[in-house]
Amino acid sequence: MRYLGIDPGTQWTGYAVLDCDGSELDRVTSGVFDLRKEGELSRRLAVLHEKLTALAAEFEPCELAVEKVFFGLNAKSALALGHGRGVILSVAGARRMPVFEYAPATVKKAVTGRGRATKDQVIKMVSYRLGGYASARDDEADALAVAMCHSHRKTANGLIS
Amino acid sequence: MRYLGIDPGTQWTGYAVLDCDGSELDRVTSGVFDLRKEGELSRRLAVLHEKLTALAAEFEPCELAVEKVFFGLNAKSALALGHGRGVILSVAGARRMPVFEYAPATVKKAVTGRGRATKDQVIKMVSYRLGGYASARDDEADALAVAMCHSHRKTANGLIS
Repeated sequence: MRYLGIDPGTQWTGYAVLDCDGSELDRVTSGVFDLRKEGELSRRLAVLHEKLTALAAEFEPCELAVEKVFFGLNAKSALALGHGRGVILSVAGARRMPVFEYAPATVKKAVTGRGRATKDQVIKMVSYRLGGYASARDDEADALAVAMCHSHRKTANGLIS
Repeated sequence: MRYLGIDPGTQWTGYAVLDCDGSELDRVTSGVFDLRKEGELSRRLAVLHEKLTALAAEFEPCELAVEKVFFGLNAKSALALGHGRGVILSVAGARRMPVFEYAPATVKKAVTGRGRATKDQVIKMVSYRLGGYASARDDEADALAVAMCHSHRKTANGLIS
């Protein structure tokens, strides 16, 4: 099974495509879309739509995993996050990819075994589980982590034999 | 000049295309995308992207007007609104259409002359200014109102001779 993990943002969006076979994990591709240079918000969102559509067409992941939004956010941050998420969800919807959301603590627990792990511990464990792969940025590591969390859940639930 | 006004939502999205020549206003098209029947959020956002892209390609408006977000919203509402807005802004960005945002009071003032007009007064004045045109839904009237506000601003600023 091939999963897409996304860490949404309107400055940078992290992405990761993982192949999962039981507990075997294989990184197909991952990285960060750097949207800052695109200028105003509407252009950044248009480029995000375009790049993510191309990524999904090239690698054909079957499901999307993203972090659940923490509602302690203020309205301004929630709106900004919503702008990026709306574009990402629309790309998944256009391909009829089911979308799965995981709370940050669930992602940490799935990756490190501890729901209260630090960001650094998550990054180290992501790297360890991918044979020492070093993410270029935290957004990429976060996208890999949420994709790993999803593969873990699917395997644990016996949805993949 | 041809303007697109949008009232974003993930259940219904109102749209309006107006032609403006000085103080002359002409309704080219307007209506509501009813997204409820599309099912889950990602599908609704995908259909919104598709329909709005088709609308913009058919009518070729040169600028987009939307309401500015009121930050008294709670995080949950701001996120939901952000999802719809993100898709709308990405469509404008893909066509390199400049985006203009107007506070609700600015829209009311431009349409009725009063920043504290009721929703009903706005709807009546929108209808009056379009020769008695009756909007099918409030979302359509809101989209017409924000497009009118934009045309008013451009004319008042002498940007249109």
